[in-house]
Amino acid sequence: MTHFEVELQSLKERLLAMASRAEASVAQAMEALVNRDDDLARQVRENDDAIDQLEKEIDEQAIRLLSKAPLATQLRLIVATLKIARDLERVGDEATTIARRSIELSQEPQLKPYVDLPRMSQLARDMLGDALQSFVSRDPSLARQVIPRDKEVDALNKQLYRELASYMIEQPANISRCLNLMTISKAIERIADHAKNIAEDVVYLYEAKDIRHSGGK
Amino acid sequence: MTHFEVELQSLKERLLAMASRAEASVAQAMEALVNRDDDLARQVRENDDAIDQLEKEIDEQAIRLLSKAPLATQLRLIVATLKIARDLERVGDEATTIARRSIELSQEPQLKPYVDLPRMSQLARDMLGDALQSFVSRDPSLARQVIPRDKEVDALNKQLYRELASYMIEQPANISRCLNLMTISKAIERIADHAKNIAEDVVYLYEAKDIRHSGGK
Repeated sequence: MTHFEVELQSLKERLLAMASRAEASVAQAMEALVNRDDDLARQVRENDDAIDQLEKEIDEQAIRLLSKAPLATQLRLIVATLKIARDLERVGDEATTIARRSIELSQEPQLKPYVDLPRMSQLARDMLGDALQSFVSRDPSLARQVIPRDKEVDALNKQLYRELASYMIEQPANISRCLNLMTISKAIERIADHAKNIAEDVVYLYEAKDIRHSGGK
Repeated sequence: MTHFEVELQSLKERLLAMASRAEASVAQAMEALVNRDDDLARQVRENDDAIDQLEKEIDEQAIRLLSKAPLATQLRLIVATLKIARDLERVGDEATTIARRSIELSQEPQLKPYVDLPRMSQLARDMLGDALQSFVSRDPSLARQVIPRDKEVDALNKQLYRELASYMIEQPANISRCLNLMTISKAIERIADHAKNIAEDVVYLYEAKDIRHSGGK
């Protein structure tokens, strides 16, 4: 076997190790649910860091391998394109979720003015726009600025979730509307996630460095 | 420019076209929500088919490009590994969501026996197991069998969502527990999605054919 083949074999083995851990996590999470076992549930959360770490290692190894192949720069662009396309496809799905829930919402009177949601979606859309701009203008420093903004959208989503949950308890008649708003809020939060992923791909593309899950999560 | 470079340029342009459409979809979905505009909302759903189609074209073009590069078979394995690793990372995140909500649920009395959730999660876990098995045993026909099973999990999730929503309206005291169960159900549904993605990657890896979004969705 050539060195390249040996590395490829080790890449595959690492992926299988990651797969076992992910499968075990799902099994344990369900066991924790059914048996009301908080210790096991906490273990799942800890295992997740190991899974994240494995993904990082796999990415680094895959990227190192690609860099040794002929046409390395072009390959990097192709790989980044494949990843970005998948994220954009998901953005489209989330937009469809928002649209579908909007139709349900417009069948009943409006609950209250949608102040938070347009603000959240503006943040998410700015992130998406900047991530794509950083791709077009080959600007990894702009991409880097996108990444931390995801936390802001996460926080807004959590806050809105809590508000809507309390509101449902006070006014059970509004439950179905609140559920639709929660789903929309979550969809926006996921759009911001995808923007962050795209920004990470742009950093990888133009700096050839994987920055995911670094700096503590 | 070489033919390879021309194709690479066109790949990049197609990705930018996809990006504009995804951005427009998000903007339109939010406008539909705020203005209660059902026609616009329906348009977002239709646009999503075009976005899916673009992703398919981008994938095909990227894969065609990769197949022309030296070490094509190895490159395909590397690309599949990167994609599968990302899905497994998300599976870990969903397991963490289940675990987190289980901890919240165990602080209150159990609502009712969890019959549907373990059944759903068994389906999702079997899908994940078979998708990974098809990768290990290089068996695209096993991978193909995984893909349609996603619909079954989707249907169970939708049914449970409706049941829990009615239950919340009848028994507002149970709202927070029902919300946690809804989130868990959705997390299981997403695990099945990731298993489906992995199966699609395995088919691509061993058959070099992209099967996403074909056969109607």
